[in-house]
Amino acid sequence: MQTDISPLAPKTLPELPEVPGVRFATAEAGIKYSGRDDVLLAVFDPGTHVAGVLTQSMCASAAVDWCRAHLASGDARALVVNSGNANAFTGLKGQKAVELTAEIAAKAVGCSPSEVFLASTGVIGEPLDAEKFRGVLDACAARLQPSPWIGPARAILTTDTFPKLATTSIKIDGVDVVIAGIAKGSGMIAPDMATMLSFVFTDMPIAVGALQSLLKTHVHTSFNAITVDSDTSTSDTLLAFATGRAKEHGVTPISDLNDPRASQFGAALGQVLFDLAMQVVSDGEGASKLVNVRVEGAKSDESAKKVALSIANSPLVKTAIAGEDANWGRVVMAIGKAGEPADRDRISIWFGDLLVANNGERAPDYLEEAGSTYMKRQEIHLRVNLGVGSGAATVYTCDLTHGYISINADYRS
Amino acid sequence: MQTDISPLAPKTLPELPEVPGVRFATAEAGIKYSGRDDVLLAVFDPGTHVAGVLTQSMCASAAVDWCRAHLASGDARALVVNSGNANAFTGLKGQKAVELTAEIAAKAVGCSPSEVFLASTGVIGEPLDAEKFRGVLDACAARLQPSPWIGPARAILTTDTFPKLATTSIKIDGVDVVIAGIAKGSGMIAPDMATMLSFVFTDMPIAVGALQSLLKTHVHTSFNAITVDSDTSTSDTLLAFATGRAKEHGVTPISDLNDPRASQFGAALGQVLFDLAMQVVSDGEGASKLVNVRVEGAKSDESAKKVALSIANSPLVKTAIAGEDANWGRVVMAIGKAGEPADRDRISIWFGDLLVANNGERAPDYLEEAGSTYMKRQEIHLRVNLGVGSGAATVYTCDLTHGYISINADYRS
Repeated sequence: MQTDISPLAPKTLPELPEVPGVRFATAEAGIKYSGRDDVLLAVFDPGTHVAGVLTQSMCASAAVDWCRAHLASGDARALVVNSGNANAFTGLKGQKAVELTAEIAAKAVGCSPSEVFLASTGVIGEPLDAEKFRGVLDACAARLQPSPWIGPARAILTTDTFPKLATTSIKIDGVDVVIAGIAKGSGMIAPDMATMLSFVFTDMPIAVGALQSLLKTHVHTSFNAITVDSDTSTSDTLLAFATGRAKEHGVTPISDLNDPRASQFGAALGQVLFDLAMQVVSDGEGASKLVNVRVEGAKSDESAKKVALSIANSPLVKTAIAGEDANWGRVVMAIGKAGEPADRDRISIWFGDLLVANNGERAPDYLEEAGSTYMKRQEIHLRVNLGVGSGAATVYTCDLTHGYISINADYRS
Repeated sequence: MQTDISPLAPKTLPELPEVPGVRFATAEAGIKYSGRDDVLLAVFDPGTHVAGVLTQSMCASAAVDWCRAHLASGDARALVVNSGNANAFTGLKGQKAVELTAEIAAKAVGCSPSEVFLASTGVIGEPLDAEKFRGVLDACAARLQPSPWIGPARAILTTDTFPKLATTSIKIDGVDVVIAGIAKGSGMIAPDMATMLSFVFTDMPIAVGALQSLLKTHVHTSFNAITVDSDTSTSDTLLAFATGRAKEHGVTPISDLNDPRASQFGAALGQVLFDLAMQVVSDGEGASKLVNVRVEGAKSDESAKKVALSIANSPLVKTAIAGEDANWGRVVMAIGKAGEPADRDRISIWFGDLLVANNGERAPDYLEEAGSTYMKRQEIHLRVNLGVGSGAATVYTCDLTHGYISINADYRS
């Protein structure tokens, strides 16, 4: 098990502000780990709206099923997250476990079970003993606080090497509205989405439909634009909770996307999601380099994204980057295997600003030494032009190292 | 660079028979390697038919383009294969290089350039200096022999750790007809197809159309059912040459698939292709275990194959196998991410004969220790039933080890 912090981790942890209407506590429920908190209870003021994006996996976890069923109402009063057990592929037992968890939390908080949202992360296929939450969630409910966020950020981690926090604030109607988010994720990371849990909190008053639309739009270029290992998890969950408490300072609610403040708020939300997504990929299991794959000149944006993912998920491209080898031939291979429209004889490839290949062959002025020097950087930018249109997309990944093998060949045992 | 022979290599190399109408020689052209033969010239009697299956890559090599253009005629007199340079993504230079190679070979052999078939494997993006074949191919043509096959099998290798040869013979019209094949491939292996070159030779008289149909049918369950790293190459080439010389012993030609001997011959051809494909996956870069992934109960065979490939290509499944960890939760994840129809609550999973999961949860009688013991085997069989239909498919892969990283993080430098 890796214990060193990723070399790509941010140098400092951001200090997250209190979000009016949000309080939380963490505890050690002893699900799997010992000596660390593994459960988070967050409680929201009445009137809090929730939106979410959940894994597309055909084998979604029981908690994902629960959230999917209850997102429709859009009302949330509590969030319970545990690490160490994903409660996925646990059949009827898993369903009973989420029902019991929601019931225990609802009682502790004083709300309906349907207003409790749940997420679990950890080993798949092990029944989750929800009885362990009894007492623990009551104790949490008795010591809720609006800060510090480092507790929740740490309680939800599994193989992560650092906690992930991001925040921003925006002036809306002359009032400072805050957005604060936490995330976990390190391996089993790929759209749509990663073994990735992320929870974002704001005091913005906003209708459920508008919040859901903005979340969906901005997940596309953040959490759904990252890949560590192409493995999509059964548990991926992104939830956004909006308490609406900024109303007290005169902010009127955003009721739909026609409100010009919607795109302003959306941009701020997107910034927090992007920041968290980059932290997830920077904590990719075994990662030593952050890789930005930009594909342009594609038939469509969607086609560009498929090619970018083909490059970003290629084990041969990722190992070449790990080896600091400017092996652009493997980029050619990954473009070719994507099966998307591309004009082989017009393709261009850049490493950073270095034009490596042009018009379907090695660029005349490209020097191997320049490529080798570039590859020593910690952040690598690959750019490709497919020569067939104007579609473009960017995808973010990391390299594939011995560290990934070490972590994953010995995770559960 | 790995030098040890794969632990999954066959214990002995098969002795391949002479194939009437086929003669060959190898030489050191100094393309990239030194101290080893890197070029193969095979020459066929007049009347030899050829069929082929080529990479689907959008960035196919110049040699693949050449073969695609000339397969239409179905007539072959020579084959030139070089290792060390793929002549892929080399633009107009690459096209000139294949034209020059075919011209040199045609002159050496005494045929038309369009009857010369070409394949190249090695680094992508480096111009291939075809002038190096001048003289070398003349010398080869002067010392053609019908055996031993180990020379050709070795000359075409790149990162392979052992040469790949397979053969069978069948009685057709009371006559022994032979099929002999060689292959190379170790990394950049995935359908459709692998960085995989394979050449199969027979003295069966068979029409081009029938040969092409049989080849296409049997590649589906052999070379297109293996994956090492999901990376499809720009150079994948499978060519089958049928000299028709068995006619001399009274075998009448197969003119179409309605001939009952077509399926008999096809089965024998399929056996050789399967044998070679298994050798390729057994030589997967860094492989320590051979993995058989069987998916049943799918909506269709095609759907089953997609799920099987999702499992076989999952880095997390492959690293778990490398770590001898019976982590069936990762199999659940890989089923889920495939996006194909599956009934989560009816899925069953077996490791060998061990029922691990049943009806969407851990099987009641499954013991972790039994799983761990099973995972110590060198050949691992994963079987999944998706519970939605009767589609089935089998895919073959290997585990993902530190060896793969070592080989590929330092291949070109």
